[in-house]
Order: sequence, then structure tokens, then C-alpha cells
Amino acid sequence: MATEIERKFLVTGDGWKPAVLRSVALRDGLISEAGGRKVRVRFYDGQATLTVKGPRSGLSRDEFEYPIPAADARRMLERHCAGRILEKTRHHLRHEGRDWTVDVYGGLLAGIVFAEIELEAEEAGFARPPWLGREVTGVEEYRQGRILAARLAARG
Amino acid sequence: MATEIERKFLVTGDGWKPAVLRSVALRDGLISEAGGRKVRVRFYDGQATLTVKGPRSGLSRDEFEYPIPAADARRMLERHCAGRILEKTRHHLRHEGRDWTVDVYGGLLAGIVFAEIELEAEEAGFARPPWLGREVTGVEEYRQGRILAARLAARG
Repeated sequence: MATEIERKFLVTGDGWKPAVLRSVALRDGLISEAGGRKVRVRFYDGQATLTVKGPRSGLSRDEFEYPIPAADARRMLERHCAGRILEKTRHHLRHEGRDWTVDVYGGLLAGIVFAEIELEAEEAGFARPPWLGREVTGVEEYRQGRILAARLAARG
Repeated sequence: MATEIERKFLVTGDGWKPAVLRSVALRDGLISEAGGRKVRVRFYDGQATLTVKGPRSGLSRDEFEYPIPAADARRMLERHCAGRILEKTRHHLRHEGRDWTVDVYGGLLAGIVFAEIELEAEEAGFARPPWLGREVTGVEEYRQGRILAARLAARG
């Protein structure tokens, strides 16, 4: 098990683009999301994983991640995610000694961009890149499952 | 991935007890259960597993099961199952060439006993042991998650 300490931000403009070191397409399927817990299957960089996340407590949450066979992950995405599939391109970059990711969503969440930084402690400091927008860590309306549910509902 | 074809029955009387070959205590935690899908962590016979089950289709359902570290399973049970923990003793027995399990629940589900047989095909035949009661495969009111939710609600 790992403890994930992650902060999530909106992004303003394209200033982050020149700093991108590597970009990877990923595909997530939400198997369940309730009570702050989330079970997710992910394809990323040729790997498939099954992840259980606990509810957030402050900035931290439990994360249990296991590699699984690609055929299992494919079947879960096709049959057991009830259409709650997220596609995004994850861009990796560095800013003043810190690793950042900028996720640009496609598919149902097209238009959405979030930046995230993973920290070693809740109180850890970091330099804000100039393209960083408002922090939305733990903000209900910016939870990807919530946005996805709203867009699925809007499609009817 | 495996396809699980399982039939579930009530049990009448104690006639099954002399046929028991092996009995193992197990502990299940329900991480989520929605739309017929279930995510479960289990301790069984010194092993810990994380299991995703798909919704039932006829008598069959998809089952994805992975071994996980015992420390992870313990933490999931303690922190991420919201009290939905099932304790049971699983008795293994044979009847006319078929393997059966009889699960005797403890804890919150004390008093409940189910017999199950796993089949190689939906149409596979089997001999009914004399102690076998009514079939409850797929019957909503006999789903363990449902019974557990009702008992948790009754406790207030």
C-alpha cells in the first residue's frame, strides 16, 4: 500500500507545453466509486493495473495498486465499467526540481485539463509554475467521476 | 479472468456435517457493491485476495481474482470496507463426485448457512444431496451484501 499525497489544480493557458518531457496516453475505467472509495482499472504505458483508493483524509489517501493481465483489464473496461471510461494524455514535466503531470482529457471529458503534483508530506512546499491555476484538491465539483457522471447524464 | 458458474442453496438440517472433508475460516470485506458488480477483499487459508465480480448473466458471472499482500488486505478490511465484513467457516465436502461448500456465517450474519456448487457449464447436472434446501441462486433477498446491509441497518 502507498499513501498518496497529491494536489490538483486547474491550468491557465499553454505555458506548460514547452516544458513537457514525455506524454503517455492512458485509459481508465471506473468499476466503482462510493463513499470516497474508488476502484479503477487503468491502461498506461503498456501496463494494466487495478487500483483501490480510500477516501481522502486531509491531502492524503490510501492507494493500493496491482498489475493485472492486459486481457483482464480489457474485459473489465468493456464489460464492468458501465461506460465510465476516461481517456487522457498525461504529460510529464518538471518545474524547479518538482515533477508535475498535466492531464488533458479526451472523449467524454474533452476540454478538461488538470495539473497534479505528488508530494512526500502534506506540508511539503513547492514552487508554483506560472501556468498553474486555482487549486481544486478535494473539491467535489472537480472530481473526475462527478464530471463524467454529469456529462453522461447530459448525453441522456 | 474466470467465468464463475455457481449455484446457491439453503441447507436443511445437519446432515451435511458427517461429509465434511476440510473446514477453513474466511473473512471477506466488501469494498463496493453496485449494479451487480462487487469488489471484495478476502482472507482465506493464509492467503489474501482482491476480487472483482461482474454482474450475473444467467448462472454465470465474470470473476477476476488476484493475490495481494496480507498487510494490504488487512488495511482494506480495517479502513475501506465501512464495516461490511463477513466472517464464515467454509466447509468442503463431496457428494456423488461433486465438490460442495457449506458456508456457515458468524458475526453479523450468524445463523445463515448456504451451500454452493461450482459447475463447468450452466446446463451441467448434479445429484442433490439430501440436506439441500431451496435454490436461491441470484435471488436478491439472499444476496449476502443485501442481508448484511439489512442487519447493519437493524443495529442502527
